[in-house]
Amino acid sequence: MGFFYPDTMIKRNEYLSRLHSSYLFYEIAQRKQKFISENPGVDLLNLGIGDTTLPIPATVSEAMAEAAKKLGTPEGYSGYGPASGSEELRERISREIYRGRVDPDEIFISDGSKCDIGRLQTLFGPNAKIAVQDPTYPAYVDGSLIHGVCDISYMPCVPGNDFFPDLNHAKGSDLIYFCSPNNPTGNVASKQQLEALAAFAQKQQSIIIFDSAYSGFIQNSDLPRSIFEIPGAEKCAIETGSFSKLAGFTGVRLGWTVVPKELQYSDGSHVYPDWVRVVSTIFNGPSNVAQAGGLALLSPEGKKEAKSLISVYMAGARKLLHSLSGQGGEVYGGADCPYIWVRFPGQDSWKVFQNLLEECRIVTVPGAGFGPSGEGFVRFSAFAKPADIDRALINLTGLPSTVH
Amino acid sequence: MGFFYPDTMIKRNEYLSRLHSSYLFYEIAQRKQKFISENPGVDLLNLGIGDTTLPIPATVSEAMAEAAKKLGTPEGYSGYGPASGSEELRERISREIYRGRVDPDEIFISDGSKCDIGRLQTLFGPNAKIAVQDPTYPAYVDGSLIHGVCDISYMPCVPGNDFFPDLNHAKGSDLIYFCSPNNPTGNVASKQQLEALAAFAQKQQSIIIFDSAYSGFIQNSDLPRSIFEIPGAEKCAIETGSFSKLAGFTGVRLGWTVVPKELQYSDGSHVYPDWVRVVSTIFNGPSNVAQAGGLALLSPEGKKEAKSLISVYMAGARKLLHSLSGQGGEVYGGADCPYIWVRFPGQDSWKVFQNLLEECRIVTVPGAGFGPSGEGFVRFSAFAKPADIDRALINLTGLPSTVH
Repeated sequence: MGFFYPDTMIKRNEYLSRLHSSYLFYEIAQRKQKFISENPGVDLLNLGIGDTTLPIPATVSEAMAEAAKKLGTPEGYSGYGPASGSEELRERISREIYRGRVDPDEIFISDGSKCDIGRLQTLFGPNAKIAVQDPTYPAYVDGSLIHGVCDISYMPCVPGNDFFPDLNHAKGSDLIYFCSPNNPTGNVASKQQLEALAAFAQKQQSIIIFDSAYSGFIQNSDLPRSIFEIPGAEKCAIETGSFSKLAGFTGVRLGWTVVPKELQYSDGSHVYPDWVRVVSTIFNGPSNVAQAGGLALLSPEGKKEAKSLISVYMAGARKLLHSLSGQGGEVYGGADCPYIWVRFPGQDSWKVFQNLLEECRIVTVPGAGFGPSGEGFVRFSAFAKPADIDRALINLTGLPSTVH
Repeated sequence: MGFFYPDTMIKRNEYLSRLHSSYLFYEIAQRKQKFISENPGVDLLNLGIGDTTLPIPATVSEAMAEAAKKLGTPEGYSGYGPASGSEELRERISREIYRGRVDPDEIFISDGSKCDIGRLQTLFGPNAKIAVQDPTYPAYVDGSLIHGVCDISYMPCVPGNDFFPDLNHAKGSDLIYFCSPNNPTGNVASKQQLEALAAFAQKQQSIIIFDSAYSGFIQNSDLPRSIFEIPGAEKCAIETGSFSKLAGFTGVRLGWTVVPKELQYSDGSHVYPDWVRVVSTIFNGPSNVAQAGGLALLSPEGKKEAKSLISVYMAGARKLLHSLSGQGGEVYGGADCPYIWVRFPGQDSWKVFQNLLEECRIVTVPGAGFGPSGEGFVRFSAFAKPADIDRALINLTGLPSTVH
């Protein structure tokens, strides 16, 4: 009407208006960039986004190089692979990661957990009610909002409940997103806790979407690495997994999702064929070169190399944990997960983030970015380079009073 | 009620029930497998799914191998890249493919067109009305259905209109999916036709989603390779592009989408920031190794090699075209696109598909799988190995009467 003539008459998807204007890690990157451009030459220590910094194990990078070269030969060339990933890799994940607990057919290889989390919501549609841990990895909420979900319950995970939520907050939820080892708190659920979670889900007939991206970092062998270690989970859970943190695949892009064949909708029909349909329709399988890397990683030699990679990150986590606790801070995580969750009582976490950036030259992630219960906390990532962690420890020792 | 106790109370996304039970190419793979298992030892010639068969150019496979090896070194390692792809590759696509017509910032690198087509629908939501060419690449329709779209108009593209649709069939549509060179008909829209399409879209304020996956195969230099060759398209079009067919990247996974910064919704707000948000939320960028391949492909040497690859496929297309026309068939496409679209008047295309499979040992794609106007047609793909095309020509010469 009047003076305004739009170029198109197409409406914006109203679902998008429910999202914050930018994704958390994008926002942090912007703030970091701003600081760098205002302070040219400044040397920032990145303990923010959980991005891997150590080289990919030699066995793995060699296998990818060989796969790439093979694609350049008539004998070795291959085109489209199965949308659910190579048979061989599915078998190896079944054997090496799940010890046969899930069938190779139930494993779908993808270009990463985050992408699968986005696609999973297409199974349940906009009317599904979801519950998430609070604080939580933002992709669960944002990926659901994009698909029209608007009924979201938060289950606070705080020091007061040892970071395991009161499940009554998920009452009536169709889907329960659960991440262990947890991003951002660094906490790992015990077997008893996961049993309680599965029992709760079965009783109220919900589906758990279990994110096991950090399972490779669990040091304590009593702690469960997969929801499928819990009997009955095949009737109430989907699990996402990732090579990203396990061996530096953040840029290579490789993950997987387990959808048990037994899993049902309320009408008794199965979820499995729908997932086959979704991945073959709006996805086309992960890169064949990345898959060759995944296969090599799960070889005896690759596993050994990945283990030593993990031990380097976990040594950094222990150092951070020790240093930050030593200064009298309230510090969590870091034992079985490379994230340290530090409380700054009564403080605004974006302000603490900004102070750490300006005064310690350290990039972290403000807890509030992960949800309301993250307010007053900041996440430190031990995925930084070992030398950077050491330098961060020095900068933190002189932690200014505004921060600590 | 009664005797039935489901394991979960979660409802299936009702959107999924609108899909056929399986994706077209999945269905074809199943039929092919069934035939092979019933006829062990049989040697099938695959002219079905448009899957590349020639090795990736040496420059490209070497560059990917080098990138993979670099990831195994402390100096060469990198983690997460930008969700929209590497700056360098965006710049090179802008320069080499678009001759500067679109800005590097407007190019978003992805793991393939099909995946982007799935994500694009999240911009416009379930209420968008869409129009597609008929016959059409099934991912436009299926990807839209998954996101809840139910108002779909078909624009018949048949010999009678030289495969360019009467645009009035798209009256009232918000989105017009348009593929040129076309899959499956092999037809390429002229500059005048694309001008008419853009004028139509601008007049009724729609957005065109232009699929340019096969633009590299255009031989006639008068034909447009991108919708952005048409003035004003930046106000009414999004374009998807792909490395898949250009240089055998079907399994490597690399494509892109151009979202012009000028493009608006009906309220005058811009589409661009939403797309940034979507790719950074439910996607994480394509594999860094694949991106290194894309960069090498667009180098002077890579371009030369890709050109010779394309000329091999197009020589096969010409042979198929010649042989099939020579037998008096009604044959289309094949001149500027590696697909040949053959009419079998009055016949059921799935039956023709089955006959070609059983009697000529040739896998094709039944036209009906691409939409109602595909009935009576079959698509032959020239992406087969040259030797397989030659053998197919022999098998086709004795084309049994049930087929021809």
